Amino acid sequence: MSQRKPLLMDLSNTVYLEGRDALIIVDRRRLPREFIEFYCTHHEEVARAIEDMMVQGSGDIAITAAYGLYLTARELENRGIGRDMGELETAAERLRSTRPTGHHLGTLLDRIMVQVRKEEARPASEVIMEFIWRALKRQGEISEQTGAHGEAILEDGATVLTHCFAGAGLLYMFQYALKKGKRVKAVCTETRPYLQGARLTAWSLSEIGVDTTLITDNMAAWLMAQGRISVVITAADRIAMDGSVANKVGTLQLAICARHYGIPFYVLGYGGPDPLTSTGKDIPIEMRNPAEVTTFKGEPITGEKVKAEYPAFDITPPELITGIITTKGIYSPRSISEYYPRLTS
Amino acid sequence: MSQRKPLLMDLSNTVYLEGRDALIIVDRRRLPREFIEFYCTHHEEVARAIEDMMVQGSGDIAITAAYGLYLTARELENRGIGRDMGELETAAERLRSTRPTGHHLGTLLDRIMVQVRKEEARPASEVIMEFIWRALKRQGEISEQTGAHGEAILEDGATVLTHCFAGAGLLYMFQYALKKGKRVKAVCTETRPYLQGARLTAWSLSEIGVDTTLITDNMAAWLMAQGRISVVITAADRIAMDGSVANKVGTLQLAICARHYGIPFYVLGYGGPDPLTSTGKDIPIEMRNPAEVTTFKGEPITGEKVKAEYPAFDITPPELITGIITTKGIYSPRSISEYYPRLTS
Repeated sequence: MSQRKPLLMDLSNTVYLEGRDALIIVDRRRLPREFIEFYCTHHEEVARAIEDMMVQGSGDIAITAAYGLYLTARELENRGIGRDMGELETAAERLRSTRPTGHHLGTLLDRIMVQVRKEEARPASEVIMEFIWRALKRQGEISEQTGAHGEAILEDGATVLTHCFAGAGLLYMFQYALKKGKRVKAVCTETRPYLQGARLTAWSLSEIGVDTTLITDNMAAWLMAQGRISVVITAADRIAMDGSVANKVGTLQLAICARHYGIPFYVLGYGGPDPLTSTGKDIPIEMRNPAEVTTFKGEPITGEKVKAEYPAFDITPPELITGIITTKGIYSPRSISEYYPRLTS
Repeated sequence: MSQRKPLLMDLSNTVYLEGRDALIIVDRRRLPREFIEFYCTHHEEVARAIEDMMVQGSGDIAITAAYGLYLTARELENRGIGRDMGELETAAERLRSTRPTGHHLGTLLDRIMVQVRKEEARPASEVIMEFIWRALKRQGEISEQTGAHGEAILEDGATVLTHCFAGAGLLYMFQYALKKGKRVKAVCTETRPYLQGARLTAWSLSEIGVDTTLITDNMAAWLMAQGRISVVITAADRIAMDGSVANKVGTLQLAICARHYGIPFYVLGYGGPDPLTSTGKDIPIEMRNPAEVTTFKGEPITGEKVKAEYPAFDITPPELITGIITTKGIYSPRSISEYYPRLTS
């Protein structure tokens, strides 16, 4: 009897078309207890779903946004307008603006728009859908390859501390380790305010058979102090060419504490750094609505005069990172720019 | 028009007798939005209220437990039994067992029982009530004195990062600073899983006029990295004679991050260290019910196969602590044992 793949190992399980003109997004904020399908027929609905964190993770956000652009292309074609580059640009711009920190979103939409312009004889929706299929296929391969390289750093008996949901690559990494008979355990920070660590990571890992322990975000250092953590592994929403890593807020303090205790800190870097981002300072940090901190499930948790701040990401500098795990292997953060082959002069 | 004192500046606002045979405990887990009075007539109810975190903070827990012992003494007297030392010992033992990490609980109950035995001609309830009055009065003085010493380290324009609810001393510290015209701000971690930072600290500080910002526990380092935090100040549930500090879990990682960024880290040490605890290793860390991490307000937030851990406190070693602020002034952690005058030989 084969183990069913966990839901979050493949984006197609939670973001998928219904017919040819509607997109379903499964609301990740309600997982794992509820499976709520959000139905979109317009890019604006997709943009809001992304802004509202129904979907998360830099790569998943990019592909979901591409579906939003596809819906607009379809709508124009269904109305007999065909391709209206102005409308498509407006939609792409709206989708691009949803989440500024991860670079995959802008990169994918830009590449799609270039291709749509190039293949002017074909319906835009076809060109976009081809891109989405390729991106989905490539994302799966990237996750498998990155997971395989990540598996190599896991020793038998290791306990991995992870933060937020680091994507399918993390799940592959653990699955490969289990297949090799390594007894690996996971400790997941719950990741406030949206609890992705509890809702997505801890759930997914426990479903593939990993011994999984959930902690609140403030317990990590204490477990490290007790020698309970072998290695810290998180994802990256954007990696700058200098090896700085933007990831879910809280990553930085895990890296600092890991360094304090001499624990290696790795980043799942998937498809490598963003060649257009030179340094950590060049990464925009999304500031979300403070009400997401002052309320929990709509209920206020503090006084009315209290302000709040919600930087959704932080930047971990290269000196705190042991290695960046990519499709091509593991790089030191200082040499991550070598992920891209140099042009010989 | 004088500013009304915030609720949590005086324990008598949230833990008080109704008549002579009932104790009211205001449920702090529901503040600030709801003011729910929990009515106790038996020490077992008081013990459960303490275990369930209706009241928190090492000093406040100790006095609340003393009220529980008082209820039992009253009950014995009302039933015409008078003083039954066996029953009183049983009640004291039950109350002592509620929360193991803070030392004030055991210390106060031990001292009360010694005095009750000594004054054998008086009703036990009278002896206990005298102790409670003295402890309340002394606690108020300690908070004012500690707050005054703490105020001295706040520079004009300082932003203080604090964790959990550090007690009335923290509120006095800010109030004194404001009175001197210092523009001081506060950043409060929400302090999962019980959100004391959001519910108690941020609310109380904002009510006395402090510019107060709430963050989730995972955002602290990022604010430090941006140069936004001048000093970190937390409380202590127990201070060992070697300068190690047990406090709400999460304190340790704030201390590590503060050290990383060269930010001073102070502890509000109130009435000094526990003379019976030599080192941090001698402090028992309370392990609470994992369900308090896997659920939020009774609703599960992760999968059923996920385990959890809830160490309620952690130990910050002396090398990460800049100073311990007490009634007698500020000590370096290495010299905190000098809080107690030495016997001259």
